[in-house]
Amino acid sequence: MNTNRLSKTVIERLPLYLGYLKSESAATAEHISSTTIAKALRLGEVQVRKDLALVSGAGRPKTGYVKANLIERLEEYLHFKAENTAVLVGAGKLGRALLDYAGFAEYGLQITAGFDSDGRKTGTTERGIPIYPLSAFTDFCRENHPRIGILTVPETSAQGICDLMTENGILAVWDFSGARLTVPDGILVRQENMASSLAVLSEHLNQVNQ
Amino acid sequence: MNTNRLSKTVIERLPLYLGYLKSESAATAEHISSTTIAKALRLGEVQVRKDLALVSGAGRPKTGYVKANLIERLEEYLHFKAENTAVLVGAGKLGRALLDYAGFAEYGLQITAGFDSDGRKTGTTERGIPIYPLSAFTDFCRENHPRIGILTVPETSAQGICDLMTENGILAVWDFSGARLTVPDGILVRQENMASSLAVLSEHLNQVNQ
Repeated sequence: MNTNRLSKTVIERLPLYLGYLKSESAATAEHISSTTIAKALRLGEVQVRKDLALVSGAGRPKTGYVKANLIERLEEYLHFKAENTAVLVGAGKLGRALLDYAGFAEYGLQITAGFDSDGRKTGTTERGIPIYPLSAFTDFCRENHPRIGILTVPETSAQGICDLMTENGILAVWDFSGARLTVPDGILVRQENMASSLAVLSEHLNQVNQ
Repeated sequence: MNTNRLSKTVIERLPLYLGYLKSESAATAEHISSTTIAKALRLGEVQVRKDLALVSGAGRPKTGYVKANLIERLEEYLHFKAENTAVLVGAGKLGRALLDYAGFAEYGLQITAGFDSDGRKTGTTERGIPIYPLSAFTDFCRENHPRIGILTVPETSAQGICDLMTENGILAVWDFSGARLTVPDGILVRQENMASSLAVLSEHLNQVNQ
């Protein structure tokens, strides 16, 4: 297995392969070819072969990859079997939805606690995840060492909370606030910008209507 | 106002300006300079001036832009004051969170109904949005003409639902399923891929730990 750092675009494609292979794992055939994978995911065959070679070595000519092995390698590579623990700050609607979203476990993400500056939002979610007051954040991190911070606060408080996160050992920030964040070297920020998505959708509708 | 089609990257930045200007609209100064905006959003000043010129014409030398006007132009351009009606298919955890997320209204998006193939999920959300059985989708679209379809079904059902949407007049699909979708010409697909985000976050943690 090649352990060099893969490019971000390759890494972003790996869950696609994994998702597809898992959906096919019930089928009886033990092997699967790069042609089949490429067709199903509408990717180029050369790209599929190159991507998968980086993670698991080449498939065998004619027979292709052993599905179960390929799934294992992808999960290993993506650390989706590891437990990355995360904390979430901002227990509004979106925050609570993410806290209660069971699907993340499949990707190795375990959200262990939520925090909110509004005392009325503390308590326990439907799935039993605790929501603490923000003042408990530092102590919680000191004891539990979460490495991912999920940011679901309003844009205007985002930088302050991001700073609090990185000061307390968070190494990767998953940001839903739409803010522009500054972080120290070595910290990754991954943004989900719903407002930008809505802008693109809305612009498309406007173009169609003209 | 320039009504030519702006590039996607410019459109994605416009909500940033709008968000910042709104957060500053309470401040007493009537004007704001491109220098101030660029600094606050950590963008290049030339870029800010170019972006805003496309939407609202140039700011005046020395005094800059009239904040209220600029906000109005951005909202106008982004159609965030228009009402884009959307329907959502897949009323699981994520789907319900989106249905109940009040924040979309700010961006001109009104989700008028949810649909699910599982009869046990029909009913009404906390905010009073109806969730109908999937079999009611075609009739609903015929009567209400929604133009945006939000896809929060599992990856394996995504293409089928996407087809159903485009056959019923949906022009823009906001996809949270992680699937690779094929759509007819003229239909826009905007993807939010959480699994890809998690892959990138997880890879970062792995690199840091090595």
